[in-house]
Formats: sequence, structure tokens, C-alpha cells
Amino acid sequence: MYGTVIDQLIDALRCLPGVGAKSAQRMALQLLERDKVGASHLAETISLAVEKIGRCQRCRTLTEFPICDICANKARVSEQICVVENPADLYAIEQAGSYRGQYFVLLGHLSPIDGIGPEELGIDQLMDRLANETVTEVILATNLTVEGEATAHFIAEKAKVLGISVSRIAYGVPMGGELEYVDGGTLNLALQSRKEI
Amino acid sequence: MYGTVIDQLIDALRCLPGVGAKSAQRMALQLLERDKVGASHLAETISLAVEKIGRCQRCRTLTEFPICDICANKARVSEQICVVENPADLYAIEQAGSYRGQYFVLLGHLSPIDGIGPEELGIDQLMDRLANETVTEVILATNLTVEGEATAHFIAEKAKVLGISVSRIAYGVPMGGELEYVDGGTLNLALQSRKEI
Repeated sequence: MYGTVIDQLIDALRCLPGVGAKSAQRMALQLLERDKVGASHLAETISLAVEKIGRCQRCRTLTEFPICDICANKARVSEQICVVENPADLYAIEQAGSYRGQYFVLLGHLSPIDGIGPEELGIDQLMDRLANETVTEVILATNLTVEGEATAHFIAEKAKVLGISVSRIAYGVPMGGELEYVDGGTLNLALQSRKEI
Repeated sequence: MYGTVIDQLIDALRCLPGVGAKSAQRMALQLLERDKVGASHLAETISLAVEKIGRCQRCRTLTEFPICDICANKARVSEQICVVENPADLYAIEQAGSYRGQYFVLLGHLSPIDGIGPEELGIDQLMDRLANETVTEVILATNLTVEGEATAHFIAEKAKVLGISVSRIAYGVPMGGELEYVDGGTLNLALQSRKEI
């Protein structure tokens, strides 16, 4: 009803996560009414990113280079590999700031029903790194979902065969969390994983 | 920290309304990880829209044609002009479905402090239409804000000089509104604008 091109733009904007019909309309009108310069710049930047951004050959995260900044950084600890599901998880850990080791990004989790097996997650590539590099510890930081747990378990079994120590990040009550408002599943986990002090 | 091109993309996405740092990051990663086809399509559509979309020469709404669909539609009532602030307001009225007349889009409201006067709002162009077309009624549907009211008042004065009947859309309790939850300002307006039944 807005004319073909505006309708197309509203439709195209809906491919963004969290953007429904109403937000897409608002975005389209704002871009065309008030920010044509920003809109052109956005279009160019998306095209540039689609063309340039690929996967790091070593850890599979998103990067514009053959090897990402983190893998290329010689100052980082080379004995630890942290395994995450997505680049967003990698960035979350980097922003937290305490981890100085290597990464491996699965780009998903085991999900036989969707046809996602070890091959799609590059687990062979991870095992090659474990076998050929000086890695002593694999830290499994997949999500605490059924699929994330299954994926962690699968990698743990394979890594142990190579004699490499495997750990899973801790789950429990979050910092600042008030017990009253923490969900039961988390509380149970926190009780089970209690540590002597 | 994501590498230059991804950072640029995150930055560019922030020109969209309602998109902050975290949503922009999520959008960028989703486009690059899972939807490169959608991303390319989005970039092309934005470029196309920026190039093609201009203003309707008659009512100033956004359109890819010299004259928009509504102005070009001979089946619509030509005696009424509804004046709105933005194309989004026009679409809201069109979607409501009961209005069959013409429109005029101000693209803003009077705001001397921002240098927006009658000229920027095309009020002369509106007056030309009132003087030269067969218009009998101007319906003022600017927002119920200080600026929207001032703009409506300004246009009403000018239109009355031409002997054209001027109306303002009704304000009051919205459909389904429960008095208990309606704000005081709206209730006062609804009382003042009461109608004999």
C-alpha cells in the first residue's frame, strides 16, 4: 500500500532480528524521510561486510582476515582453547575481559533433527588442533541447553581420548542475583555444584 | 573489537530508529552468520529506495512516482484534504480505512526554534491547492502536541480567509478505553468536547 519500492524496503528490513512489521515501517520511513545519507551509508556497509567478512581459518569466528585478530595475537595463551557456539558468545567472553587463551567457534550445536552433526560444527578441525598444537585444556562454554550440553559432552569424550584436560564453565547464581528471584533450575544447579570454602 | 568491517556495520545499523549498541551487534552477527542473502538483498533495496523514493508533487508524501497513488486515484473524494504531519500518519489513517479524500503531508510541524516555519512545511503549496482546486473542507489531523496544535491553528486561520470550512479530528477517550486508566488530560478533553445525544 506504500508503493512498490517502500513496501520492498519494509519487507527487506524484516530480515533483521527482532524487527516486525511495525518497526520495519518506522525504520523505512525514518530512513527515507530524515536520513537518506545514513541509509546510503548503511547499504554500502552491508554490501562491503557481506563481501569481505568470512570465517577465521583457525577458530571459525567471523572476520575480514584469513586469520582473526585473536588467533593472530601472539601475546595470548596458546595452551587453552575455549569452545563456544557463536561469535556473539566469543565477544561476550572477550568483553568480560579475564580470558586470555584461544577460541573455537562451533557455529551452532549438535542437532541431528536439523541435520547438524559433528562435521557441520567443525569438530574434526578442533580435534586436529588439539592433536597438533600445544593445547593442555579445553574449556567448554556452550550454552546450558539440552543441545549445548550434548555438544559439550560429545567434545569432552573426544578430547579426553587425546589425553587433554577438559572443563565446563560454571553455572549457578549470577553476580548480584537474589536467591528469591533466581529460577529453581539455576538454584538446583548452584546447590549441586557447591564448593567447599 | 570485532575487526574494522564488522564494527563499521554495527555502527551503520545504529542509524535505524530504536536500535542501540546491543541490538546492532545482534543484527550484524545474524546477517553475517545466517543470512548473507537477506543482507545483500537489504543493501540493494535500501540503495534502490534511496535512489527512487521522492516526494509526491501534490501532497508531499513519500513515493517513487511524481504523483502518489492516492493523489492519482480518480475514485477518491476531491473536496476534502486531510493535513497530517508525517507519511506515517497518512498510512495510519489509510489503514483505518474510512477516509476517502485527499491528503497533504507537512513533513513536520511549526517549530521556530528549529527554524521550521510555514515555508518548510509547504503551507503555501497547500494554500495554492485550496485556492485552485474544488476543496470544501480541510481536516486538520496534526498531533495533539503544543507544536501540532499551533500548526493546526495557523493553517485554520489561513484556510478560513479563503472561505473554506476547517475541522480538527476529535480527541477523547480511545475505543475500548476504560475511564479509570485514561490520563487526566484526555479525560478533560473528552469532557470539554462532549456531544449531546
